[in-house]
Amino acid sequence: MSKKGEETKKMILEEAKCLFARKGFKDVSMSDICKSTGLSRGGLYRHYSSTSEIFQSLIGTDYSFEEQIERNESAIKILEDELDFLEKEIIQNESSLSLAIYEYANIGDNREMFLEMETKAKKRWMQLIEYGIVTGKFQSVNSEAAAEMILYYYQGLRMWSRIANIGENTANNYKSIIISMLTGGK
Amino acid sequence: MSKKGEETKKMILEEAKCLFARKGFKDVSMSDICKSTGLSRGGLYRHYSSTSEIFQSLIGTDYSFEEQIERNESAIKILEDELDFLEKEIIQNESSLSLAIYEYANIGDNREMFLEMETKAKKRWMQLIEYGIVTGKFQSVNSEAAAEMILYYYQGLRMWSRIANIGENTANNYKSIIISMLTGGK
Repeated sequence: MSKKGEETKKMILEEAKCLFARKGFKDVSMSDICKSTGLSRGGLYRHYSSTSEIFQSLIGTDYSFEEQIERNESAIKILEDELDFLEKEIIQNESSLSLAIYEYANIGDNREMFLEMETKAKKRWMQLIEYGIVTGKFQSVNSEAAAEMILYYYQGLRMWSRIANIGENTANNYKSIIISMLTGGK
Repeated sequence: MSKKGEETKKMILEEAKCLFARKGFKDVSMSDICKSTGLSRGGLYRHYSSTSEIFQSLIGTDYSFEEQIERNESAIKILEDELDFLEKEIIQNESSLSLAIYEYANIGDNREMFLEMETKAKKRWMQLIEYGIVTGKFQSVNSEAAAEMILYYYQGLRMWSRIANIGENTANNYKSIIISMLTGGK
């Protein structure tokens, strides 16, 4: 794709993200996205054929910790980088996609896709936790239970952030509770 | 109130809870509650004047750990009893009020009420955690951070349980992660 094409796609995703965060999934139409991007119908459909396709691009995460682990980066460093990133997300109350995700997951066939995403996310965290344990950086914990805590705690915060602002203190607590669970007295 | 009146109220709350869990808050009307309780309009309004009033009775929790603490019950015993209770709630996927709570909180003046409820819930957990630390049953943790983890982790699970079934294993992990966070190697 041309550089201009890539930039248009990026702009569509950014605008769509704001709309989904504000209105949920159901109430956003392709026309809304035309309006806020300033693109013509043809200009938008050249890149995406539906709001579902756009939404899946936004939430799809094929990201894993594999690369860092192969580079033998310290599990603590990988963990801290990831938590710094999540901490920043948590205080961006207006960007929470939780409601949209919830709505989207409840539409027909999307449930399966979500279960897969959840399984992937859990496996990704379990891989890091087990790597940390094996390399002696983390204490010995039940990696599945720890991964679930990290994921559901985050989801609870993001959903709640649609009701009330989540402050820096609460976001920072997320980080420190997880670090202390994984590294304990180490 | 007469014994019969008390029983009617209890029955109204039970039926309304099922409706709110299934349909959220907005889509449940007083007529729906008449229909599923079999009460006449007059019979229902004698006890509650609106769906808001019913909903507030359902979610209002003035419950605290104070009584058990005054009886010098062990913090570990109090914690385990409470977590047993929450664990059972978590696997009752169909009874999750998360969506209804979310909808309700986003209606006009209800936000304030929710912030108060959240503050109360946090204080309640902090009281137990600090009691556990002082009596040497819990390790020294940041009680606010620990209370937030317990609450948001739970909320994430309950919201997710509307998308997918939460199994016993995941509910049990909730309990064991919290016990291990609070009691550590003790």
